Amino acid sequence: MTRPSVTRWKITIEYDGTPFVGWQRQENGLSVQQLVEEAIEKFSAEVVRIQGSGRTDSGVHAKGQVAHFDLAAPRDDRAVRDGLNYFLKPHPVSIIEAEAVEETFNARRDAKERTYLYRILNRRSPAALEAGRVWHVAAPLDVALMQAGAARLVGHHDFTSFRASECQAKSPLRTLDELSVQRLGDEVQITARARSFLHHQVRNMVGTLALVGQGKWAADDVTAALNACDRSQGGPTAPPDGLYFMRVQF
Amino acid sequence: MTRPSVTRWKITIEYDGTPFVGWQRQENGLSVQQLVEEAIEKFSAEVVRIQGSGRTDSGVHAKGQVAHFDLAAPRDDRAVRDGLNYFLKPHPVSIIEAEAVEETFNARRDAKERTYLYRILNRRSPAALEAGRVWHVAAPLDVALMQAGAARLVGHHDFTSFRASECQAKSPLRTLDELSVQRLGDEVQITARARSFLHHQVRNMVGTLALVGQGKWAADDVTAALNACDRSQGGPTAPPDGLYFMRVQF
Repeated sequence: MTRPSVTRWKITIEYDGTPFVGWQRQENGLSVQQLVEEAIEKFSAEVVRIQGSGRTDSGVHAKGQVAHFDLAAPRDDRAVRDGLNYFLKPHPVSIIEAEAVEETFNARRDAKERTYLYRILNRRSPAALEAGRVWHVAAPLDVALMQAGAARLVGHHDFTSFRASECQAKSPLRTLDELSVQRLGDEVQITARARSFLHHQVRNMVGTLALVGQGKWAADDVTAALNACDRSQGGPTAPPDGLYFMRVQF
Repeated sequence: MTRPSVTRWKITIEYDGTPFVGWQRQENGLSVQQLVEEAIEKFSAEVVRIQGSGRTDSGVHAKGQVAHFDLAAPRDDRAVRDGLNYFLKPHPVSIIEAEAVEETFNARRDAKERTYLYRILNRRSPAALEAGRVWHVAAPLDVALMQAGAARLVGHHDFTSFRASECQAKSPLRTLDELSVQRLGDEVQITARARSFLHHQVRNMVGTLALVGQGKWAADDVTAALNACDRSQGGPTAPPDGLYFMRVQF
């Protein structure tokens, strides 16, 4: 028997995480994965399972989630992108790009680097236009202090103190390539870049940096928390609203 | 009889226009004006009417709407801002600033310049994260052509061709100080600045510039439409989603 010829597809996906239980299929509600799989089935009349580059939690957004799947029938790049978008309506999920790739491509395994952005609205007044899209922190944040605290986390470490208790990764060791902080008007933006992250790692690091920015923690407290290898010694988990899965490098 | 002493308050307001019938009080649904007036009454136990710098339509957003009102009891700036925000929850309306001003201050009459921003998402894929916050135009827009078209509208003109039929202004004459177009990635942003605008004027100018950007209209067609002084000769009305009332100069 010869193996049937299929085309492997790579898609780049933008979504508003607010109405979903997260990226991954779950029994208790609508996920982005389920919605995209159903759109593919409506478009192609083929039953598929897609694999994403990262599992985002409920309320977490994406500008550049990547996933792969196979289709038996040959299709044009634009037809796949536009066809999926047609069947995704009216949900806040949009296929930015679709391309046929080598059949060995794997969105999860081949990801060399993932970039997340965390947006904090740092002003006294609550968010109106950006509600659900930022974390509102009313107390003034000192970005220079946050930068110094962030520097303590960059590099190869055991991130147990910043890992959710339900994290399923075998090892707590990760290499954090970037954790940078900048102010843009009344917004504080934190960029985190690594090959991979532990569950809640970005949100736990951001919650910790918010303590540093308010002067409640010093940079040395960040190092002490990291060295403790104990989740109870890390800072609180920042809400999902401000987190964006920005892009994947392969 | 002596006139009772009151304090005139100036507030700056941000809102997501999506869930509202618009700025102004109406019988057929919830307006931003009604919501803010009710918040002031809950906060101060005083019945007030507020006047805004501009009437935004349903679905139009604001980053810097301004309004004024009077309170008999003396109050602190921060207490007014934070108190109103407390009573505005959970609606997407936020008081950015509150300040006591001279009792002659009038948010509508004293406005010397109003600035609007219009955001077009110009890519093939629909909006996901920015749904309701941008106008999605799938056809490629040539910004240089749009800039040339926009230049034909700047200055003192009869804007009848860009005025809603239900516009209540006495004169169709307006002086447009700025109408500029720039591209930021897959977004095309149009800034309009004038002492005042006619009803739907910005959205009608944007709808016209979108025709120019697609090459369907030349800059000369914009001039011809303007000179016709006939709404049927202007371009279509762009949707409210992409429009932001940014700021008012006094």
